[in-house]
Amino acid sequence: MPHPLFTPEVRMMLQERSDAGLREFCESLHPATVAEALDDDFTPEQVWEAISHADIRTQASVFEYLPPARQVEMIEKARPQVGQLLGKMSHDDRVDLVRRLPEDVHEKLLRLVDEADRRDIATLGQYGADTVGAMMTTDYAWLPGTLTAAEAIDQLRQQAPDRETIYYVYVLDEAARKPDGTLAPRRLLGVVSLRDLILAPRHALIRDLMESEVEALRYDEDREAVAKLFARYDLIAVPVVDDRFGLLGIVTHDDVLDVVQAEATEDLQRQAGVGRIEGTYLEASFRQVWLSRAVWLVFLFLMQMVTINVMAHYEGKLDGGAGRPDGRGLAFLIVFIPLCLSVGGNAGSQASTLVTRALALEQIRARDWLRVFRRELLMALALAAALGVLSVARTYWFTPTDVLVKVPDDGFWSLVWVVTFSVMGICLTGALVGAMLPLGIKSIGWDPALMSGPLIATLSDVLGIIIYFSIIGLFF
Amino acid sequence: MPHPLFTPEVRMMLQERSDAGLREFCESLHPATVAEALDDDFTPEQVWEAISHADIRTQASVFEYLPPARQVEMIEKARPQVGQLLGKMSHDDRVDLVRRLPEDVHEKLLRLVDEADRRDIATLGQYGADTVGAMMTTDYAWLPGTLTAAEAIDQLRQQAPDRETIYYVYVLDEAARKPDGTLAPRRLLGVVSLRDLILAPRHALIRDLMESEVEALRYDEDREAVAKLFARYDLIAVPVVDDRFGLLGIVTHDDVLDVVQAEATEDLQRQAGVGRIEGTYLEASFRQVWLSRAVWLVFLFLMQMVTINVMAHYEGKLDGGAGRPDGRGLAFLIVFIPLCLSVGGNAGSQASTLVTRALALEQIRARDWLRVFRRELLMALALAAALGVLSVARTYWFTPTDVLVKVPDDGFWSLVWVVTFSVMGICLTGALVGAMLPLGIKSIGWDPALMSGPLIATLSDVLGIIIYFSIIGLFF
Repeated sequence: MPHPLFTPEVRMMLQERSDAGLREFCESLHPATVAEALDDDFTPEQVWEAISHADIRTQASVFEYLPPARQVEMIEKARPQVGQLLGKMSHDDRVDLVRRLPEDVHEKLLRLVDEADRRDIATLGQYGADTVGAMMTTDYAWLPGTLTAAEAIDQLRQQAPDRETIYYVYVLDEAARKPDGTLAPRRLLGVVSLRDLILAPRHALIRDLMESEVEALRYDEDREAVAKLFARYDLIAVPVVDDRFGLLGIVTHDDVLDVVQAEATEDLQRQAGVGRIEGTYLEASFRQVWLSRAVWLVFLFLMQMVTINVMAHYEGKLDGGAGRPDGRGLAFLIVFIPLCLSVGGNAGSQASTLVTRALALEQIRARDWLRVFRRELLMALALAAALGVLSVARTYWFTPTDVLVKVPDDGFWSLVWVVTFSVMGICLTGALVGAMLPLGIKSIGWDPALMSGPLIATLSDVLGIIIYFSIIGLFF
Repeated sequence: MPHPLFTPEVRMMLQERSDAGLREFCESLHPATVAEALDDDFTPEQVWEAISHADIRTQASVFEYLPPARQVEMIEKARPQVGQLLGKMSHDDRVDLVRRLPEDVHEKLLRLVDEADRRDIATLGQYGADTVGAMMTTDYAWLPGTLTAAEAIDQLRQQAPDRETIYYVYVLDEAARKPDGTLAPRRLLGVVSLRDLILAPRHALIRDLMESEVEALRYDEDREAVAKLFARYDLIAVPVVDDRFGLLGIVTHDDVLDVVQAEATEDLQRQAGVGRIEGTYLEASFRQVWLSRAVWLVFLFLMQMVTINVMAHYEGKLDGGAGRPDGRGLAFLIVFIPLCLSVGGNAGSQASTLVTRALALEQIRARDWLRVFRRELLMALALAAALGVLSVARTYWFTPTDVLVKVPDDGFWSLVWVVTFSVMGICLTGALVGAMLPLGIKSIGWDPALMSGPLIATLSDVLGIIIYFSIIGLFF
């Protein structure tokens, strides 16, 4: 949420009904800056009033930069020009807006836009959320391959005002008819950049200038594919095609940034055991957030039934001191349980996060498991060594007096070694399990992110308890 | 790691010494695809051989797409054309490469490039890592404001081949001298897009066409600022300026995606208690990864001294059954400790991740704490309710027999309520602490990400133990 510098100025102009001032304000600044200035303190009516003096194209640009929830409010208080404004919006942003509207508003609105726009909204609206199709826009620039470079630039002058970008121009073939008689999307033959058009001799033909090995995406691929393609090829836009390479639309670079941010948010939330949430933190519906958190909390709660059973199995060993010559029990050993659980959870989540992220960025593949195993084994040993030294020092000097008085007479060094070997063993196991599980999950074709975070923590709780009590069994 | 489709073909051509085939291969495909085909199985010499038949500009493009570690290996086996190749590389990629080289190779290499490039590398190399300056490139297109649109396009034709982008053209003033007599960077007066140049009348002056309200970044800002600006304004490039608005370079959209990915990786790792790591999972130095993990493990280990002391304080209550009329102890209650710790950790990390991410994306500000508190309080109550119901059912039906036999005769319902109220209280506290701490940290100007993940987990361990034993005290 950036600081809306111009808000007081707009408020003043609205009070003074300074139409010229408002037009000047909307048209001279970047539409994102105008949208920011018109923040939550203004009513939807005031926002309409503030932008309505600018030309309709500027109104559409400012409107696109308003937060989604705001756009919906604005449409509910729609002005007569709203049909025209929708006609000038980016086709992808327009569909996103229409998707968000309540059913009745949606229908009222569609009656205000013209036939072609209505058809375009319907077409784009049919693609599944999270697919490439749902991200794309249909306002791309295109040309037939038979034009010369000079003719192409002239044509682009006509197309430019209504196109999302003219820096990539798509070269399409003749329209063909489908068996049912309707027109099929024109097939994508190549792409030529405006840079190449400018550099080319005036009379060169587009079909000779164009790059015909085009990187394209299918409309039904996952949106993650977009981010990967942009990252690999440094593109400004990517064409989206159907089964027969017919051009359906393009995805532009500005939408990719949003996808990468959204994917990162999803990864972070999944790592913390939060399901997918639509909208920002304060906008998202309470019910949806509750559900996305409760499902995980309940699942992890149920997983903890295992730790309870494991604890119950070992707890008898500590209870009372009947078996010990000096009659002192071992219950004091429970004070180290949180430490053991914490070491396992931390070592495990470090390793699983590193491996899961490396898999997501395609830095490693499931078949690299042996290299990962070797590296993590060495790493886990080196980490365990560090914690081991610390643990000897810590148990030797800093064990609380409450605990020390209960240690059997011959048991002090046993205590030091139990804690130290447990910490080391748990660190080692946690790190190895954390590293290898995501690879295992990946190799059977599931999403490795499922195994990071809380699930690893629960698993390492169980292993931690088993290791701790087994080592106690060896020394006491 | 995408699948290198063309690898076998390249291997064949190298064996057959098919120079024409290799040139065709390098020049007809996208340089990213060529770079992928030349994967780890080829030696650096083979890669040089494969690309050396293409023209030097293509060689430079392919080279830019090789993984950083590979580029360094290639330079160590440098061919004579390497000086020329560096001359044709993007200025930002070139500096990144030079930074990675060992000292001796670095110096040998600099002797091979010409004076202007050497100066450019030195200038770009001086900016701190993670600053905007370190991301920028100096091969931008610029013009004086006095040209007409037609003249500008002619000029761009000359500049295009050596520029990172010509879609934004920067308008600069006359060069001025600094007090010491050297030339200061030319001041940025405005920006004009190639789209606007194409649309403009031939004789329109650049200074009338240009946008003079330019969004620019200072060279010493954090690289996160770049991502924010691009996300806000949907840009292709952003100018980087000095204190007097002198243009130093530009940052282009393709580098922003890398930054957003790198920042997301950093956030994920920090959430899992892993410090910053340079390079990919398999490339990063063992020592650096060890350090970045060991520091956190040791820190969290030391934090657990608190839980040990808290446990030691309460443990006496459970030990033996002296105080109870039926002589049975309460040690069986320790079996629920891992459950309690887990609930607190999970509820806390969910809330802290959501709030920290919302802060990072500027969806909320520290001053929204009251709204966040109200929302999280309701949410925590609703989550605690769900776990409460589950906990009654779970303790009633599924408590292990090993534990049941030790429960005092009148104590079964006490057990049910102790576990249920503890789980609910810990869930509530965990979620509230997890949500509010990042806001508190943010409000004193620190990075809220420090408080997510393991630190919240440790804190909620302590609170969990206190809550659990306090509730035991009420019922037994």
